[in-house]
Amino acid sequence: MPKLHVHIYPENKHVTIDRNENLLQAITRAGILLDASCGGQGTCGGCKVRIREGQASPVSSGMLSDDEKKQGFVLACQCVPKSSLVVDIPLESKLAEQRVVLLDGSEGDEVEFLIDDPNFTDEECSVPMYNRITLEVPQPTLGDTEDDLGRLLRTIRRETGIEFLQPTLDVLKILPEVLRKSGWRVTVSLAEGLGLQPVEINRVEPGPAADKHLGLAVDVGTTTVAAMLVDLNNGRTLAVKGTYNRQAVYGDDVISRIISVGEHPDRLGDLQKAVIDTINNLIEELCGREKIEPADIRAAACSGNTTMVHLLLGLNPANIRLEPYIPVANNIPAIRASDVGLKIHPGAWVQSIPGVSGYVGGDITSGILVSGMAQADELTLFIDIGTNGEMVLGNKDWLVACACSAGPAFEGGGIRHGMRAMQGAIEKVRISRDGSEVSYATVGGAPPAGICGSGLIDCISWLYKAGVIDRSGSFLKEAGTPRVRDNGEGIEFVLAWSGEVGICKDITISEIEIKNIIRSKAAVYAGIRSMLKSIDLKVEAIDRVVIAGGFGRYINIVEAVSIGLFPDIPLEKYTYVGNSSLKGARMGLLSRQARRQLEEIAKKTTYLELSEGNIFMEEFISALFIPHTDIGLFPSVQ
Amino acid sequence: MPKLHVHIYPENKHVTIDRNENLLQAITRAGILLDASCGGQGTCGGCKVRIREGQASPVSSGMLSDDEKKQGFVLACQCVPKSSLVVDIPLESKLAEQRVVLLDGSEGDEVEFLIDDPNFTDEECSVPMYNRITLEVPQPTLGDTEDDLGRLLRTIRRETGIEFLQPTLDVLKILPEVLRKSGWRVTVSLAEGLGLQPVEINRVEPGPAADKHLGLAVDVGTTTVAAMLVDLNNGRTLAVKGTYNRQAVYGDDVISRIISVGEHPDRLGDLQKAVIDTINNLIEELCGREKIEPADIRAAACSGNTTMVHLLLGLNPANIRLEPYIPVANNIPAIRASDVGLKIHPGAWVQSIPGVSGYVGGDITSGILVSGMAQADELTLFIDIGTNGEMVLGNKDWLVACACSAGPAFEGGGIRHGMRAMQGAIEKVRISRDGSEVSYATVGGAPPAGICGSGLIDCISWLYKAGVIDRSGSFLKEAGTPRVRDNGEGIEFVLAWSGEVGICKDITISEIEIKNIIRSKAAVYAGIRSMLKSIDLKVEAIDRVVIAGGFGRYINIVEAVSIGLFPDIPLEKYTYVGNSSLKGARMGLLSRQARRQLEEIAKKTTYLELSEGNIFMEEFISALFIPHTDIGLFPSVQ
Repeated sequence: MPKLHVHIYPENKHVTIDRNENLLQAITRAGILLDASCGGQGTCGGCKVRIREGQASPVSSGMLSDDEKKQGFVLACQCVPKSSLVVDIPLESKLAEQRVVLLDGSEGDEVEFLIDDPNFTDEECSVPMYNRITLEVPQPTLGDTEDDLGRLLRTIRRETGIEFLQPTLDVLKILPEVLRKSGWRVTVSLAEGLGLQPVEINRVEPGPAADKHLGLAVDVGTTTVAAMLVDLNNGRTLAVKGTYNRQAVYGDDVISRIISVGEHPDRLGDLQKAVIDTINNLIEELCGREKIEPADIRAAACSGNTTMVHLLLGLNPANIRLEPYIPVANNIPAIRASDVGLKIHPGAWVQSIPGVSGYVGGDITSGILVSGMAQADELTLFIDIGTNGEMVLGNKDWLVACACSAGPAFEGGGIRHGMRAMQGAIEKVRISRDGSEVSYATVGGAPPAGICGSGLIDCISWLYKAGVIDRSGSFLKEAGTPRVRDNGEGIEFVLAWSGEVGICKDITISEIEIKNIIRSKAAVYAGIRSMLKSIDLKVEAIDRVVIAGGFGRYINIVEAVSIGLFPDIPLEKYTYVGNSSLKGARMGLLSRQARRQLEEIAKKTTYLELSEGNIFMEEFISALFIPHTDIGLFPSVQ
Repeated sequence: MPKLHVHIYPENKHVTIDRNENLLQAITRAGILLDASCGGQGTCGGCKVRIREGQASPVSSGMLSDDEKKQGFVLACQCVPKSSLVVDIPLESKLAEQRVVLLDGSEGDEVEFLIDDPNFTDEECSVPMYNRITLEVPQPTLGDTEDDLGRLLRTIRRETGIEFLQPTLDVLKILPEVLRKSGWRVTVSLAEGLGLQPVEINRVEPGPAADKHLGLAVDVGTTTVAAMLVDLNNGRTLAVKGTYNRQAVYGDDVISRIISVGEHPDRLGDLQKAVIDTINNLIEELCGREKIEPADIRAAACSGNTTMVHLLLGLNPANIRLEPYIPVANNIPAIRASDVGLKIHPGAWVQSIPGVSGYVGGDITSGILVSGMAQADELTLFIDIGTNGEMVLGNKDWLVACACSAGPAFEGGGIRHGMRAMQGAIEKVRISRDGSEVSYATVGGAPPAGICGSGLIDCISWLYKAGVIDRSGSFLKEAGTPRVRDNGEGIEFVLAWSGEVGICKDITISEIEIKNIIRSKAAVYAGIRSMLKSIDLKVEAIDRVVIAGGFGRYINIVEAVSIGLFPDIPLEKYTYVGNSSLKGARMGLLSRQARRQLEEIAKKTTYLELSEGNIFMEEFISALFIPHTDIGLFPSVQ
């Protein structure tokens, strides 16, 4: 059978269709990311494309209007090409550039890391993971005939006190020439083995080092991936960049990706390739910008949830989904970059930040380290709401963590006009007392295209304050605003009218959607309360709340407390820590001390399985109101 | 330029000529080994072939007779093909199947290793390098949610007490499935890391192990390579096989190979490939015979002189040849089989037995261990005469080693009718009192084709006893036998006449050759005396002499003492240990205890550099007589 091709407009890109591949997979391989929040199940309608030329058999197109079907639109995920195709991709099907929170909440990607980061003292920096030193090696004589390696080891030991050293074969191959041509003055690069490994001598260069000595820290998120280029000599951040995780085509959340792995023997490899491609792309862009050879990146550290780390390394995450939710490993030994196809130096060690359990991964361990809570006397609550919701409670003496499936609502999933925090997303909402007037702000000030998580929280909070909905999220009959209407399928509230600046459809939120969001916020709050109960503490005991992650960046804390998502404690106790997963990866990359702390934190943290017993379920049901059944828990909410 | 080809008869083999390749290199690539004892310098005349068709430019052919030149003979090493060729290889140019001493002196290759080897006690065996155990891993529950790796490690630690364990990525990839499909009963293979490395979990299989678990011990000799297949479960030897080292085409001894490396940037790779090919060929034959998959070989240990080990691993041996004779490393960390292209399991560890110095390698460390001298009270002298001569003197308290270039005479090199101990080599000689009658025995009882080392020693001894030569090796005028004649270039003795059973040329030994052999024996004896002198001991102090290696197997000790090669101590103190290099590799492969002993021996042995000072030179000059200038050193020699 001759090969089929797809030509894609307006990108003007060309791709060959692999056997058994659907159109979505082919388009993704061309590097164009479509919205496929259902994971290619044909249920979200996000990957709509128009076939201009050629034939394809649409398996189903239930998400498309008759009008769209007439115009030749298909769902790419449901479409199997029967001939070569020419397709148009409408703007709304494409994953726009999302705002990826890189470090301290800044959206830029050239953020200089603070040298006086309180978690990164000088003392800790003095035990780097990937050190580099220049040495004078004593020259051999007939009276001192120790071999080249022996005299190098002797010198390194004398200079550093490191006893357990081991060279790579590549170092041994060039060692005699480098020693002699340099006049016995060489620079060696030492890579700390993780835990059990000896320190590796992985590079030897003549004289004082001239070549670059770089590291890569990566936050492997379910939705977005961020990578940071670090100078291993001094810890300086050179550049940071974020992008979408190309695994999105296999599902929006970890569960759907785990299910996807089970569907086909090759799928685990496909998912691994997708995230490795994502990272390799970031590496290419970072290296291009900084004019750096990828082979000069000599070490990497990856932080992510347990499933993401499994998929990155090609480990099967299947059992994470099945009771009793067992990962292959929480603390995975360092591997070589070449073992997973990461395009940095093939011999570079790639460490994974250790996790706690199947649902509390290295990203959270990183967050605990970066928040400083594991060294603090005060009781700290750490909250990271991303595609999943993870929370940690504790101080220097104890740590308890839990994970709740907050559902995709906060990322715009399962909401008709929901979207991620990208261009045109309504991120701030105010509603007048009678519910008749709505003011909003969008990401980038663009015409509203939908509503993102922070906008949804504002929306619920103000609908309640305006008396449009009751405590359970049901629309009140007495709210006499024209914005509340029955669309035939149920009652909804119109946030923005078609005809308003630059939009051609009403942006609405329905009662069903409001209740979805209430369920999400209830899950988070119930998780927090379950942790508190497990150690017999009350909300008031919390001294500090640390919010992490991309979603947390844009959230209005006052409104989040108002709807009962976050606990009602004084506003000044809330802090935002940015992308603590990436920050933790950077610390693990640079400091042996930090790496050890990360391992200790992962070991020490108790995982609270919320599905065990009925405490969580009781708390969840009590939290299905605005702000809560027990109004006494939210004294500041009138 | 179109490719040139060579068709080779009588093998009827075909090979393409690579650019810049000479005919010898092409023929070697075809798998046909020619005698090239000069290392392709055009000075030994061993690689004579006849060009039947085609054109070639012979660079020089000084070793050929005019008659041979007329018949179209060329030296393959000096011949650059100008067109495609058809060549005939005469029998005498081919390296015949040599007798390779495999273990305890037996020439067979199915020798069962003695289980009660005195150096291999039960206690030592209880710490195997590559262990394999079957375990019941506790199943996870909601109350015990440790990850798969954690529960495996916990179980192994409880069973073995091994604290530092690390899985390979491949093990992690299959671990969850193997655990669950086997009902949590699995067999793990543990590979001892050398020294600094944690113990590696490199295989996990369901239930009690069914798959094979094999190891490979290799003696990498300059001339011959021997490999042994061992069952790692119980230490049983399955099969042994020896062959020529294909590096021979680059020179006969280590020095000429080191020089060869310096001649061309690719040569180091060529030499590495040659020895790896040699070993891979043995692996293929052993596996074929035992019906074993090469991937079931999960570990290897290689023992060889320092240069051979360097070449095996692709390390440049250049500085071993230059004062102060520094190798890259004497104790080289274990590498992966895939790092050098050894065709066993790609992840298998390949250990190199540690050596003492540039000229006392792991083969000698092995010999010291196998001889038991490092644990003995008695003073032992260990002698290994191969292509080079190495000797060790010592006991459990101290060890001193030296190396002398005995020259190639004992292997038939530099002797017109000299040859290795292969089919037709005269290995035993008796000469009647007047020198008129000679009786001899050949290897395999074949018609005499030449004379090998043991035959040469007999010959010198009996020529002296018969009064044909004097103490300096000069022919005595008064010896009135017709076997002594002047051939125009000098005086020679006819060992076998043309016309005797099946030979068409006289087999002779000349005065120059006799003096060559005397120089060789003098170097060995002077080395022994230098070691004794360095610690102020006399020959009589030696309690035991252990002879190792292929040459030692066939030597007549009485005659060797008679000519002053070996010290004159009672015959019963001499023992023969066989291929102690291969035995040492086997022990290092099987026993962690043995590996540790090998490292200790290598560290503890003092290398005596004979070129330093003038003791050796004085001893050498004194030893240039039969048996010695100081006849008092040889009381048993009348």
